Amino acid sequence: MMERDRIRVGRLPGERSREVAEFLSSMEADRWIAEADILVDIAHLLMLRRQDLVEKDTARAVMQVLLDLYDHGIPREAFDDQFEDIHAGIEAYLIGRTGEERGGRLHTGRSRNDEVATCIRIRLRNELSGLMGELILLRETLLDLAARNEATVMPGFTHLQHAQPTTLAHYLAAYEEAFARDFERFQATFGRVNRSPLGAGAFASSGLPIDREMTARLLGFTDVAGNTMDAVASRDTLLEALADACILMITVSRLCEELVLWSSPLVRFIELNDAYCSTSSIMPQKKNPDTAEIMRAKTGTVCGALAGALMIVKSLPMSYNRDLQEATPHLWRGMDACRRSVRLLNGLISTASFCKKRMEEEAGKGYSTATDLADFFVREYHLPFRTAHTIVGRAVREGSLDLDTLERVAREVASLSLVEQGLTPERIEQVLTPRSAVMARNAVGGPSPVAMRAALKERRRTHRRDDAWHQRITEALTTAEADLIVSAREMIA
Amino acid sequence: MMERDRIRVGRLPGERSREVAEFLSSMEADRWIAEADILVDIAHLLMLRRQDLVEKDTARAVMQVLLDLYDHGIPREAFDDQFEDIHAGIEAYLIGRTGEERGGRLHTGRSRNDEVATCIRIRLRNELSGLMGELILLRETLLDLAARNEATVMPGFTHLQHAQPTTLAHYLAAYEEAFARDFERFQATFGRVNRSPLGAGAFASSGLPIDREMTARLLGFTDVAGNTMDAVASRDTLLEALADACILMITVSRLCEELVLWSSPLVRFIELNDAYCSTSSIMPQKKNPDTAEIMRAKTGTVCGALAGALMIVKSLPMSYNRDLQEATPHLWRGMDACRRSVRLLNGLISTASFCKKRMEEEAGKGYSTATDLADFFVREYHLPFRTAHTIVGRAVREGSLDLDTLERVAREVASLSLVEQGLTPERIEQVLTPRSAVMARNAVGGPSPVAMRAALKERRRTHRRDDAWHQRITEALTTAEADLIVSAREMIA
Amino acid sequence: MMERDRIRVGRLPGERSREVAEFLSSMEADRWIAEADILVDIAHLLMLRRQDLVEKDTARAVMQVLLDLYDHGIPREAFDDQFEDIHAGIEAYLIGRTGEERGGRLHTGRSRNDEVATCIRIRLRNELSGLMGELILLRETLLDLAARNEATVMPGFTHLQHAQPTTLAHYLAAYEEAFARDFERFQATFGRVNRSPLGAGAFASSGLPIDREMTARLLGFTDVAGNTMDAVASRDTLLEALADACILMITVSRLCEELVLWSSPLVRFIELNDAYCSTSSIMPQKKNPDTAEIMRAKTGTVCGALAGALMIVKSLPMSYNRDLQEATPHLWRGMDACRRSVRLLNGLISTASFCKKRMEEEAGKGYSTATDLADFFVREYHLPFRTAHTIVGRAVREGSLDLDTLERVAREVASLSLVEQGLTPERIEQVLTPRSAVMARNAVGGPSPVAMRAALKERRRTHRRDDAWHQRITEALTTAEADLIVSAREMIA
Amino acid sequence: MMERDRIRVGRLPGERSREVAEFLSSMEADRWIAEADILVDIAHLLMLRRQDLVEKDTARAVMQVLLDLYDHGIPREAFDDQFEDIHAGIEAYLIGRTGEERGGRLHTGRSRNDEVATCIRIRLRNELSGLMGELILLRETLLDLAARNEATVMPGFTHLQHAQPTTLAHYLAAYEEAFARDFERFQATFGRVNRSPLGAGAFASSGLPIDREMTARLLGFTDVAGNTMDAVASRDTLLEALADACILMITVSRLCEELVLWSSPLVRFIELNDAYCSTSSIMPQKKNPDTAEIMRAKTGTVCGALAGALMIVKSLPMSYNRDLQEATPHLWRGMDACRRSVRLLNGLISTASFCKKRMEEEAGKGYSTATDLADFFVREYHLPFRTAHTIVGRAVREGSLDLDTLERVAREVASLSLVEQGLTPERIEQVLTPRSAVMARNAVGGPSPVAMRAALKERRRTHRRDDAWHQRITEALTTAEADLIVSAREMIA
Repeated sequence: MMERDRIRVGRLPGERSREVAEFLSSMEADRWIAEADILVDIAHLLMLRRQDLVEKDTARAVMQVLLDLYDHGIPREAFDDQFEDIHAGIEAYLIGRTGEERGGRLHTGRSRNDEVATCIRIRLRNELSGLMGELILLRETLLDLAARNEATVMPGFTHLQHAQPTTLAHYLAAYEEAFARDFERFQATFGRVNRSPLGAGAFASSGLPIDREMTARLLGFTDVAGNTMDAVASRDTLLEALADACILMITVSRLCEELVLWSSPLVRFIELNDAYCSTSSIMPQKKNPDTAEIMRAKTGTVCGALAGALMIVKSLPMSYNRDLQEATPHLWRGMDACRRSVRLLNGLISTASFCKKRMEEEAGKGYSTATDLADFFVREYHLPFRTAHTIVGRAVREGSLDLDTLERVAREVASLSLVEQGLTPERIEQVLTPRSAVMARNAVGGPSPVAMRAALKERRRTHRRDDAWHQRITEALTTAEADLIVSAREMIA
Repeated sequence: MMERDRIRVGRLPGERSREVAEFLSSMEADRWIAEADILVDIAHLLMLRRQDLVEKDTARAVMQVLLDLYDHGIPREAFDDQFEDIHAGIEAYLIGRTGEERGGRLHTGRSRNDEVATCIRIRLRNELSGLMGELILLRETLLDLAARNEATVMPGFTHLQHAQPTTLAHYLAAYEEAFARDFERFQATFGRVNRSPLGAGAFASSGLPIDREMTARLLGFTDVAGNTMDAVASRDTLLEALADACILMITVSRLCEELVLWSSPLVRFIELNDAYCSTSSIMPQKKNPDTAEIMRAKTGTVCGALAGALMIVKSLPMSYNRDLQEATPHLWRGMDACRRSVRLLNGLISTASFCKKRMEEEAGKGYSTATDLADFFVREYHLPFRTAHTIVGRAVREGSLDLDTLERVAREVASLSLVEQGLTPERIEQVLTPRSAVMARNAVGGPSPVAMRAALKERRRTHRRDDAWHQRITEALTTAEADLIVSAREMIA
Repeated sequence: MMERDRIRVGRLPGERSREVAEFLSSMEADRWIAEADILVDIAHLLMLRRQDLVEKDTARAVMQVLLDLYDHGIPREAFDDQFEDIHAGIEAYLIGRTGEERGGRLHTGRSRNDEVATCIRIRLRNELSGLMGELILLRETLLDLAARNEATVMPGFTHLQHAQPTTLAHYLAAYEEAFARDFERFQATFGRVNRSPLGAGAFASSGLPIDREMTARLLGFTDVAGNTMDAVASRDTLLEALADACILMITVSRLCEELVLWSSPLVRFIELNDAYCSTSSIMPQKKNPDTAEIMRAKTGTVCGALAGALMIVKSLPMSYNRDLQEATPHLWRGMDACRRSVRLLNGLISTASFCKKRMEEEAGKGYSTATDLADFFVREYHLPFRTAHTIVGRAVREGSLDLDTLERVAREVASLSLVEQGLTPERIEQVLTPRSAVMARNAVGGPSPVAMRAALKERRRTHRRDDAWHQRITEALTTAEADLIVSAREMIA
Repeated sequence: MMERDRIRVGRLPGERSREVAEFLSSMEADRWIAEADILVDIAHLLMLRRQDLVEKDTARAVMQVLLDLYDHGIPREAFDDQFEDIHAGIEAYLIGRTGEERGGRLHTGRSRNDEVATCIRIRLRNELSGLMGELILLRETLLDLAARNEATVMPGFTHLQHAQPTTLAHYLAAYEEAFARDFERFQATFGRVNRSPLGAGAFASSGLPIDREMTARLLGFTDVAGNTMDAVASRDTLLEALADACILMITVSRLCEELVLWSSPLVRFIELNDAYCSTSSIMPQKKNPDTAEIMRAKTGTVCGALAGALMIVKSLPMSYNRDLQEATPHLWRGMDACRRSVRLLNGLISTASFCKKRMEEEAGKGYSTATDLADFFVREYHLPFRTAHTIVGRAVREGSLDLDTLERVAREVASLSLVEQGLTPERIEQVLTPRSAVMARNAVGGPSPVAMRAALKERRRTHRRDDAWHQRITEALTTAEADLIVSAREMIA
């Protein structure tokens, strides 16, 4: 049998309307942290017992119920939004099962303020870890595809105009490098998130001899979140996780924009797998890149979540204010949209077919090797760069890069003869070939296959390092939870 | 028996993973428009029949199912997120009930693009109307309270410093006037929303002889949304509704900030009703203004929804892109938070007790009638305003507005004697009394009871006008729906 | 000789560091309102004189200086950021010229709170009027171009995939209709902005017998902004103007996205005029659509301005807080970016060349008339729409819409013969021609030349009405200013 | 004599209107990077010479001008907004001074895309370093104040209600700990920013044998920004810096909210120094916390800058688009507002007086030690926490925590006698004293002086470590610049 909301009983006996209760309740978002709350309860109870703040029998009785909840899930009744939050719901359930004399002791030495802050961090570090796992996979896909496309020539664009030829490998590796920085950001955020607020109480810790370091260790945190007022009142790590997600999504949106563009019949650089597309209810010929579009749009959703959360936390005086509750759903919505997008983006890219013939065909268009011709004049004939640029630019405007045009323009613009320097139609053609243009771009980080191979080797190394780190922290979290449950079972054994 | 998603059958037979299906599906948000979709189906079918685009028997069979859905609700199976959206879910249900030969004809001459745009507008105009209704009530509460507090003197603040005395009526009426502008904005938005996109098809209308004006009329729209490309591709009215909601919420947040402040033991200007407060899980003495805090926080939620929606729609080329689907949930989240906040704010204010004694007590503090003394010097002794301001300011800094201080300062600052002008301690005291200061502020819109009474009369008139308008449009929508259903029943009679 | 900041003299004699002064000063943004401030001073002085709150000689002396400022501009020294704002700067200048005994009287019966609010509204209504003028011109350009392109067939896209053929007229008119709604929004905002806060004082009006209605009239406002607390503390009309601008810019960004896309060598639907393009410092062949890109980006700037302003105003208690000062620069930045974008967009579009041949060439691609074939089966052979859609979709997937494929698919999918219904290769070809597809789309708002002509006629009427309204309000503002100056000159005559 | 914009000469000879030129020009924001551009030019030229890509005489001639610019500043004419940007302005100046034959060679092997990206990073790392320096100082102030206030008892608030007593040290240290996390974030961002894009060209590096690692080293970067497409097209590090700034400002806004509140006559916990306050133009008694208000408002400005920048970068395809130019001013505006706020916040806090008497006076109010009484019942009488909470809560509601009330309530609620457990009026009074309540809160991070002293020792250690790191990187940047200039002077020696 469930108890009614215990917390209000003493102080505010007046009935609250269903409408107000719903408005104030965080139940919907609390589904995200309900399981974490059981872990927090278990760790707190182990600590209370060790500090002799609850008696043995009480501890065993309550722990039995907590382990039941852990093993079989939290019953629906605890999620009723007559409760302000899941913490109240679970407490009422515990009291219903064990009586107030016992269940009522679990909240000893803590407050919902530190409890909820701890639950959010437990779930958030899992979300971060899961997201980093997806990023590892996406980066691997990009590196694998790049390795297979070092010689796939394609046009590079600036302003959506054909600019210079590059390779598909160069293009894909650009995104991998950006996503690696996203990984770094999430790594650092993880480190700041993974500290325990538990024991901070309402904000001033407790007058009882609680042991914050013990609960931190039991819950797999690397440390306590020090100052207890900061521990319950700050939400900067939450905002930081959302900001990381926004920045990642911006890059996702850019890649998706290109997938939409490239799969358009106007471009045809890529064929997306049917599984990620939809058709039209009225135009049977359509194959729409819906998954890429929705991901692109999710960028707005995640940035909107950050905007909302920032605005909510702004100007709140110390320490806890109920406003903070409203910030959390933005966190979950943002992290979820981000994680799912990264996961599906990996699927979308790894199953797509690249139309290499179309890419190469376009690579030579639009005078996109004109820069190479200007570079050639600089390199071989020692023209000032600006002069070479002016000659080639004028010839482009006149519609041709043949020898006659170039020669005439060179004479007019700079009073010099390119023919006398040794320019021939054959040399022009050779220089203007996209493939040879790409070959020449050998600087560190450039697109030539030689430079690319070196870069990919380096990127693989970074990827392996990140992957190893990620496995380590994932295992640490898993082990900590397993150990916690072992300790709990030992108590009731 | 339910059919699988009919729309994909011909063009994209490859199976889609559950994960992709969920990612692309708008089902969760479509609960908002499911009922509107039935109305749209009914109106569209009446039109198809009138234009002889479906045969009588087919129309009757399909209409029978639609009326069942209208009368008894849409079954759970239609909301399965194997369907991309509720439109596909309902179509599959119709085909399951009537066969493809019949059910398959309902989508004749339309597209999901115009269908969804129409459903959004139907639901949105209801949301707008509902919200305007709440605003009418809130404004009434504020006007009633103001009328009862024309003589309730309180301190007015600038920079959270006591500035000048005013009245509670003046204060409450300031908010009412702001909310009246919100009402105006929603009114105008309602007018732009209330136009029918139906018949716009994918964006180029249809090659079949459909009648857009007929469906617009049947659905209670005041007109068709003209250009069919604009009708399906634009979302500016959606953004506008969200922007109106943000601006309203900013004012709500300001009022809530004051409710939080005023109910603090530091201030004690107001006692909120228990029904809108909560206590602490650990601090039994607390009575927290949670409802006001959550409302204040909802401002961030609504503004985040606008930020997200703007970002999603930005830079989308014509005409429809799947990104638009992702904008809609932001609309519903924003409108819902706004409407509920306005409703509860009305409850919160109308049940609160104002501590008039505390207000009056504070009204005289902090030299808050110093301006009035300066005004008095200007009015009675014809000092330049800046000189009067300097004399009073200097005296305040010296800690006293008694005759000796003022006289000495006046001599130093301006080489003049106030005593010679006739200043006495009695006159000073009289001028500095908050109540007399308020009485003197007689300009249009000012706080004196005389000015206030005139203002409230004017505000009541505006309120009545708005209320009447709102009743008119609410009735028009109700009547249109009733008429539509009558026509539908006649068809199958 | 300039005076130091007079306002601080009495109360806070401590020196403020240059750094703090700069941080607090609004001087940079005040350049936007400096001229308005002179008008406000003049109107206020006329009123003070009429109410006998200043003597004749004083009024004449001060008015003389004000008219000098009006005629010859405000001297640089008044903009020194030792002054908190331009109001302090101008007051110091006045006192320097006329002495404190006279110049110090101008601030009688007002506060910087109402003064600045009035200046903002004066400048904002000018900005709104200017922006609306640009919108009128842009809409005219779009309507003119549409009128010349009723028969220019082009592909319509959804999801950036060829969807159905339409016309350039239909496409351009879609944007015009969206911009007309923007105009409506600005119109309504103008009405709410054009009300006078002057005389509201710090928030409680004044104890002196000022006449708010007189100054409102003198300054060309349609009314006073009623409640004096609301008049100084609210910024919703400012937020509203920014929100209108954001919504407009979203539409601008969509059009610019298409201009970028269409001018890409990948698409070639449009050739932008050189005057709006740039080239590359390194790639001489480039012709980049920079103006369209910058406009697209300005959308972010304007939306960022709204986001900033909303966040600033959120949760500010009544009445004035210095935070409000920080909101204003966002307003000017947003309005300016918006107005310049609309103006240049008009130039960009009106000087561009449309490549009609390329448009028509693409119109027939990608099975974009497949819907018309399905419609044809519905219209002529009475197939259910969903069946027709399935047959055509399957045939598209098999790569052909020839008679053999359609017939085979129809038998498999629906066990029916299209040949028996009378389908021939000639009929198929005729139906699939883009031009004939467009001709059939005759619904209200559709792309057929007949429907388009009717729509354009209607749009012209709306445009003329808006243009006339705009001229009326522009003239009213001009006239009011002229009359004000005449009254001022009469005073000193 | 200045040259006109050299970059357009060849390709786009058509004149551009002043209006378009202004719209496209980034000159205003380029003031931020003009000095960095000279450094980039010098490093690039040293590299070109070393790689024999320019001849000795040319290099010397150009270097001479560059050093002039470095030594004497960039002349006004280079900032004319006829130039698209400062890079074009400086190039034109160089060509004017040395002739195209020489000056025109400086752009060899680079593009404005990599040039501007490099300049932004140079300036941004300086901004980050400067901001981190301010943070170090602010944290020091907070730690110093905390150390002096370990025993200053004050009320801690939740929901702006008196909750539990704490100390001023605890409160100030909470903010220091939050700001330390901000420091960490900026540190990591600095690491990602401090990598050189130079040599990435337009995005595909160059066909000439340039040496990216050399220029990176010369400019004090720790590494090259690898992939050249990523190096010019990504802006995530810029977004990250802004996001860090937003998160920091949120904390600043919270502290400022409290400064405003605490300095209100309603609270009087703090007296701000006159130098950071202003008075009213009309209310001479006012002393307004304007600096705190403006800082609070700057939070909106910084968050608006992030919102704008995110929206601008969203969905841009690779590689460079002109939109990116519009993102940069948001960066500078945001970083500047943040840095100045932190700096002034330090001044504001370090010069404020805390009213310890008022704090202690309030600490005992509002039953704020009621939790401690409940804790006492748990600790001493072994009551379940929830029961103790209920008893105390009920007694609070009845208005008294005297022995009679508590005893009666305990009997009713839990059928137990507190008197029998040994409760006396003296024990109650002792427990309820704020000071003794604080003393008992000994958990790690809690407010008791013992816990606080340990925490502050730890915080000092962290602060010293951060300070040392900051000095190291500051020196590294200074040294790198000095070395670069030495190399440059050697070339022309």
